[in-house]
This record gives sequence, structure tokens and C-alpha cells, in this order.
Amino acid sequence: MNFSKEQSESGVTERLFDLTVAGEVVPGVVWAPENAKGPRPLLLMGHGGSQHKLGGRLAAMAKRYATDFGFAVAAIDAPLHGDRMTPEESAPYFATLREQLARAGGMTGEPVRTTLRFAERARREWSATLDALQSLDFVGAAKPVGYWGLSLGAYFGIPFVASEPRITAAVFGLAGLGDSTPDFERAARSIRIPIEFIFQWNDELIPRAEGLALFDAFGSTEKTMHANPGGHFGMPPFEAASWDRFFLRHLTSP
Amino acid sequence: MNFSKEQSESGVTERLFDLTVAGEVVPGVVWAPENAKGPRPLLLMGHGGSQHKLGGRLAAMAKRYATDFGFAVAAIDAPLHGDRMTPEESAPYFATLREQLARAGGMTGEPVRTTLRFAERARREWSATLDALQSLDFVGAAKPVGYWGLSLGAYFGIPFVASEPRITAAVFGLAGLGDSTPDFERAARSIRIPIEFIFQWNDELIPRAEGLALFDAFGSTEKTMHANPGGHFGMPPFEAASWDRFFLRHLTSP
Repeated sequence: MNFSKEQSESGVTERLFDLTVAGEVVPGVVWAPENAKGPRPLLLMGHGGSQHKLGGRLAAMAKRYATDFGFAVAAIDAPLHGDRMTPEESAPYFATLREQLARAGGMTGEPVRTTLRFAERARREWSATLDALQSLDFVGAAKPVGYWGLSLGAYFGIPFVASEPRITAAVFGLAGLGDSTPDFERAARSIRIPIEFIFQWNDELIPRAEGLALFDAFGSTEKTMHANPGGHFGMPPFEAASWDRFFLRHLTSP
Repeated sequence: MNFSKEQSESGVTERLFDLTVAGEVVPGVVWAPENAKGPRPLLLMGHGGSQHKLGGRLAAMAKRYATDFGFAVAAIDAPLHGDRMTPEESAPYFATLREQLARAGGMTGEPVRTTLRFAERARREWSATLDALQSLDFVGAAKPVGYWGLSLGAYFGIPFVASEPRITAAVFGLAGLGDSTPDFERAARSIRIPIEFIFQWNDELIPRAEGLALFDAFGSTEKTMHANPGGHFGMPPFEAASWDRFFLRHLTSP
């Protein structure tokens, strides 16, 4: 884990890093309270499709968790995203995905399988990132770890979380089972930790039945689905307050 | 509105009252902070089937809203419930309902229609109760009014809330469209206020598709469904914290 840049603002220190995993350089970021020392809860945030580790809403939420809750929060660029490829390099992949989405009428079948081809790589990268983060003095391995990821962050996060006993609570959403792969469904069914799953009732990308089927699949005894009207990008802002409570409940002691 | 009994404990005053509506005596209760004066948000709480206005969980939540949020909270015995009938008098009705539930395999068709036969009466009684409550000095008519009702409290609350422009936010749940009546479905579709709808994913009384259809029917642009695993009586305790935030958001000024 090589740190390349560090800056502090409004009580939060943001550190950019690179980590080499299976020959690929994975760019990441970790936020923590300024002058943080010692172990603290860690939240891993998986960005959405065509987004990146420093996306506006993700970074704003991460900084708030550092200042308001004292958490460390980390994000990495997913395969094909962010600083890992130039727009020119990734353009053919996204063009294929868009064609498949149009043909399938949403995230079911072909486009889901195309997305999940990178899930195993993403899983390895997240696990290696978690190893490296827990070796940092201001993160440590003594406190709970959570995961938050919507859309692409859920398609990649579900196999990762299923494989990772260090994760004790997760927010997923804006995703569906979507006639995906046996591996993905098996991963969802094997998850036992508390889950908050957010779903848009009129999501133009995720067929409603597929979202309900994914919620149904999670093996957790504590799992809550929050469904709201509107499309893939229309989540109501009050859901963020619900994530706050969820992660405070599961990653901190009362 | 005749007050019969008043007692204060731990900062909350509980007042029992009777109100005569269309020839029937409706017993009710209103909780408010001790020594409350002047207008305040009002929450109306509709109890569940076979429960009553002073049911343990309902009363505990009501008292908490009085002490923690300064609200007035009121409940009335629904038709056939609480102090309105002796157990002997209501036994034939509940026996019929249980038979119909067993035959239908849950709240769909016959048992829903049997329940909704009393919805218009319940609606009139709630409206008259609201009139009377708003004439009280410590409630007034200047502040928002909310409604909370699960199960029977939703079957009766939906037609009431649909007819009542004074209600500005509502929590419903543990109910479904259930091949009910055109009036009930029309009422749900006509509702435009913010709704939080709680649903149990494995509810033995409410078929899943009927619960989803009821959530779908609400005409509100702001409506959220919270679904959790478990049966009709298995709601997780953390949902109460979500109702708190919902009513604080909608019944108070920030």
C-alpha cells in the first residue's frame, strides 16, 4: 500500500493510495478523522457503474462518517473504472454493456453476466485492500467492518461480502438477481449478516421482480428492504439517515 | 367529549374520554406532556385487531412521543373492540372472521370484506374524534396531524386518512389490498401524503403479493416500504426508530 497524497480539510484527512493486486494497480482512498490514532470502525464503500472512488456523493458520505462517527472509510476504483483506464480504453466495454442492457431491457441475463465477469477480480482486490487497511495504525483489526454499495457496488459487493468474514453489516441496493449466475445467487444466499437493501420501485434498469428476488435470496435473519418510488437515480435523500443508524447500530457499541 | 379520568406519570398526562358518534359511545384516550398548553403536533394511533386503545406497545409509544417530542397522541377503541363490547358480545364476530381467514388462507377476499364493513363507521368516529381533539387547548388546530396504524389500524386508517385533509403523514403496515373492495382500493390510490409502509416478508396473515399491491396502490410520491423477514407479529424493534424520524420529519419544523 503506497500512499501518494494526503490532505486534511474540515477535520478529515484524505489519503490516496495504490495497491498492487494480482499484477494490477488498484487506486484507493481512505478517509479518517484528522490526527486519528488507534482502531476504529471501518466502512468500505463500493462505487456505482461509471463512477469512481472519489465520486461526489460517496466522498461526501465518507467524510461525514469520519467527522460525525469517527469511522475510517475507504473506497477503491472498481475494475475498468476511475483511474484504472482512460475513457478511451474502457469505451468498448461500456458500449457493449449498453447494447446488452438495451437488448435485455434492463439488468437481467446478458448485461448482468457481463458485469459479474469482473466480480471475482473485484472481490480479490477488496480483500487485499481490507488486509492493507487493517495494518494501518488508525484503522486496525479490532473493530467491526461494514460495506456499502449500490448498483455496481452491490453486484461486486455481494460476492465480496459473502466471502469475507470480517464484514459484519452491509447496505446493498439498486440491484437484482436478474438471471445472473449460480455463483452470484449462491453468494447472496450464503450471506448471514444484517443487511439493509434499498430498492427503487420504478427502477428503469432493475426489473422489480429481480430486486425482490435478490432481497428474498439473502440468507440473513436481519434484513430490511426499503423501497421507494422513482427510477434508478431517484433515491430519496432521507435514506442516507437510515444508513447512518444502520451502521451506528452495527459497527459501534451502544 | 366527556373526560372520565385523568392521571399523570413520568411527565405524561393520560386522559380517558367518551365521545358519542352517530349514537354510539366511542371510548378514547389522549396523552400529552404534563401541563401542556397551546397547539402541538397530534398523532392518531389506530390499534390492531383484538387490541384496544390502551394496548401495551401502543401506549408505550404514545407516552414516549409525548415526553420526547412534545406531541399529543390519541387512540380510540375501534368498532367491536376494547370497552365497546364485552368479550361475549364480540365473540361471534371474531369466530366468523377466524373461520373466513382459515378458509381464505389469509387476509384476502371474504375476511377483508368482513373487516372493511366497519371501515366507514371507524372513519366517521376518527373524524369526529379529530374535531373534538382539535378543540382542546393543548392540541389545537394549528399544527400537523399524523396517523399510525398497522393491521386493523391500516384497514381502518386508509379510508380515514384518504378522507381527511387534516392528516399530513401516515405510517401504515401489516395489511394488503387483498381482493378487498373497490372503495378500499380507491381510498389507497387517492392518498397523496407521505407514507411509511411496513410489511413482514413472511406474514402468515397477509399474502406477500397483496402487501406489495397495497404499497403499489398508494398515490403518494413520497412513500417508503420497509420489509423485514418474519411473521405478522415479528416486526424488528428498530422500525420504531424509523417511525420516530418519519413523524419528526413530517409533523415538526426542522
